Amino acid sequence: MSILQDVDVIVKNAIRAASPDEAVKRAIKRLSNQNGKTVLVAVGKAAWQMAATAYEALGNRVSEGIVVTKHGYAQGPIGPLAIVEAGHPVPDENSYAAADQAIELVEPLNEQDLVLFLVSGGGSALFEKTLISEEENKEITRQLLACGANIAEINTLRKRLSAVKGGKFAKICAPAKIFSIVLSDVVGDSLDMIASGPAYPDASTCEQALAIVKKYNLTLSQKALELLRVETPKVLEGVETHITGSVRELCVSAERTCRELGYESLILTDRLCCEAKEAGGFLASIARFHAESSRSLAFIAGGETIVRLTGNGLGGRNQEIALSAALGISGVRDCAVFSVGSDGTDGPTDAAGAVCTGESAKKLEKLGVDICQTLRDNDSYNALKKIGALIFTGPTGTNVNDLSCVLIKR
Amino acid sequence: MSILQDVDVIVKNAIRAASPDEAVKRAIKRLSNQNGKTVLVAVGKAAWQMAATAYEALGNRVSEGIVVTKHGYAQGPIGPLAIVEAGHPVPDENSYAAADQAIELVEPLNEQDLVLFLVSGGGSALFEKTLISEEENKEITRQLLACGANIAEINTLRKRLSAVKGGKFAKICAPAKIFSIVLSDVVGDSLDMIASGPAYPDASTCEQALAIVKKYNLTLSQKALELLRVETPKVLEGVETHITGSVRELCVSAERTCRELGYESLILTDRLCCEAKEAGGFLASIARFHAESSRSLAFIAGGETIVRLTGNGLGGRNQEIALSAALGISGVRDCAVFSVGSDGTDGPTDAAGAVCTGESAKKLEKLGVDICQTLRDNDSYNALKKIGALIFTGPTGTNVNDLSCVLIKR
Repeated sequence: MSILQDVDVIVKNAIRAASPDEAVKRAIKRLSNQNGKTVLVAVGKAAWQMAATAYEALGNRVSEGIVVTKHGYAQGPIGPLAIVEAGHPVPDENSYAAADQAIELVEPLNEQDLVLFLVSGGGSALFEKTLISEEENKEITRQLLACGANIAEINTLRKRLSAVKGGKFAKICAPAKIFSIVLSDVVGDSLDMIASGPAYPDASTCEQALAIVKKYNLTLSQKALELLRVETPKVLEGVETHITGSVRELCVSAERTCRELGYESLILTDRLCCEAKEAGGFLASIARFHAESSRSLAFIAGGETIVRLTGNGLGGRNQEIALSAALGISGVRDCAVFSVGSDGTDGPTDAAGAVCTGESAKKLEKLGVDICQTLRDNDSYNALKKIGALIFTGPTGTNVNDLSCVLIKR
Repeated sequence: MSILQDVDVIVKNAIRAASPDEAVKRAIKRLSNQNGKTVLVAVGKAAWQMAATAYEALGNRVSEGIVVTKHGYAQGPIGPLAIVEAGHPVPDENSYAAADQAIELVEPLNEQDLVLFLVSGGGSALFEKTLISEEENKEITRQLLACGANIAEINTLRKRLSAVKGGKFAKICAPAKIFSIVLSDVVGDSLDMIASGPAYPDASTCEQALAIVKKYNLTLSQKALELLRVETPKVLEGVETHITGSVRELCVSAERTCRELGYESLILTDRLCCEAKEAGGFLASIARFHAESSRSLAFIAGGETIVRLTGNGLGGRNQEIALSAALGISGVRDCAVFSVGSDGTDGPTDAAGAVCTGESAKKLEKLGVDICQTLRDNDSYNALKKIGALIFTGPTGTNVNDLSCVLIKR
């Protein structure tokens, strides 16, 4: 098998291992019987997959519900559930309509009733009822993404500007009980951060929120600033939360597959969180040092890097990692650096990520592509597309962060 | 021993292992006899140490010479050699005077004579005869450092604006032969890059030089732009070059010491070259993932990172690595991330680097220091000083890049 065929197998196995199916089934077995209604609310990039699995397990016990996922991620009807596709990473009108619809479903419930709440990454954008104008909400999100704020910082603000995030959706469900299954896409598995924690007590504080505004010099309306000073729920009653899936499963699967393919494998980390193109440089420096090895080696890193926007091109963090690494591994034989998002979409593109080899830089050069300039333009997608280096998986049904890997095949 | 005592031993041993003494002695044994004069010219941060060793080996065979090193790095007279201390990283008037003095020594030599040329990192700034005004030279260096240009890019420009870099000093020495001993501080050991290769054929091209100007949008005079279009020597006759020492020796020594101290050790790379604070984040993510290990672990990285200037504070790349890592390893017990420059000075400071542990972030917080803000201000020195996290070695007599390391002690 070629090194690129190895990449293909490693990626496929890792995404399968991180599928929410088994985990959702396991969690649902712990769901005790109750007398009232069961309403299913699923939000996030893996919402359809999680809802389908849960509905199959529970059947008619679920009387109604709503599934909110990203455009193109729904795969058909599920019983009586409403299926909504909405905007990500920027919320659109469907995001707002979906939250209103969910609130309508859960608001009338009493203490006999249960909300089966299935949460996965992307929920922050897909499921939103804003307390400020939609325009300002979009504008603040834009500012936060542009200044390179990390996901924790973004969510700390979003929670306070929203009627459903930061534990507030749980408050709306009360007095109904909530049984929440969470598919983690947050490095380190902080439950109040996944989808901005609609049904989880919020650990962030007003003080932190205001510090973030200062740190990035954000422009906010007076109303938004006042909302940042309103504290989020710190205690929630009647909420039971099960966390399933995580980036670690991606890494462990990749390590296993690499071993089966004959690579000596090491997981470097499951919580990579630095700048994408710098991570690419670091991974390339590891590859180049170990290029002299006589054995096949794999170095694995899971996590979620960030992109610092300095241009207006098309790309994503995984594509930036691979493209940046291409420079560092140029000329190294039988060496590859790949990076993929487990949800199947990297940034606002149709690619899940990319893989570069020791030949990629030369290929790009021949086509007149300046890698450094492309990275400054944040235009990794168009460059990688030219040399067939993009990885496409389509929507995967899961969302547990990214997998990056250095392979040296001997 | 505490983890900080371990750091102390690892650093001391690594710097000793990277000393040029043995290497210079080995190289000098290959020096054949000749009839004419032998003139010694030593430039760089390790110049004094290299010259002292060479002079001890050759004794009276050296008739005259000059040693140019950084301010504070000379440790006394060496026979009849002139000792000059000059500016680094920005050249000062001594840098220019030293180059003039060296040219005066080598220009009259004939083909019977020999120039023993001892080169180490820092030579680019310490040994300079500029073809443009000193003011513009300084201004271009400032622009290049500020925009985060890497050392290869900086040297590609410097070579063309200088009368001694990029092989041009060798042209001045001709017809005398040159026996050059090079202590490498360039990741990957590219000989034309160390001290901007005064006696080595230049691999860079005018085209590359002009592309760098465009890439960083540099402001240059018409004269400087014209000089960038003059090609450097691509062939040099009568020059014999021996490369000694390299960042790999630092890494190999660190690996050995770590093993002796009971750590399972892995060299990740000997050519790290990404942004310093992002490298710190990456190292911290490795530390945090492996924090659950029941065995003591060490991950070692050698190389030379770059600092992106976004503030006006005091610090250096090694200090930024340690301070940035402090955030990521906060709360991890018996864990340290350290980084040191083997020459004993990190950036324009008196510290060689710094070490942070799982407690460092909390200590800084208690003192009211915001780590993120400090990194944006490039003010790592003042923050690390407050918590006693700086590493001081004084001038070490060597200069073979930096050593960074993650330690987890169990």
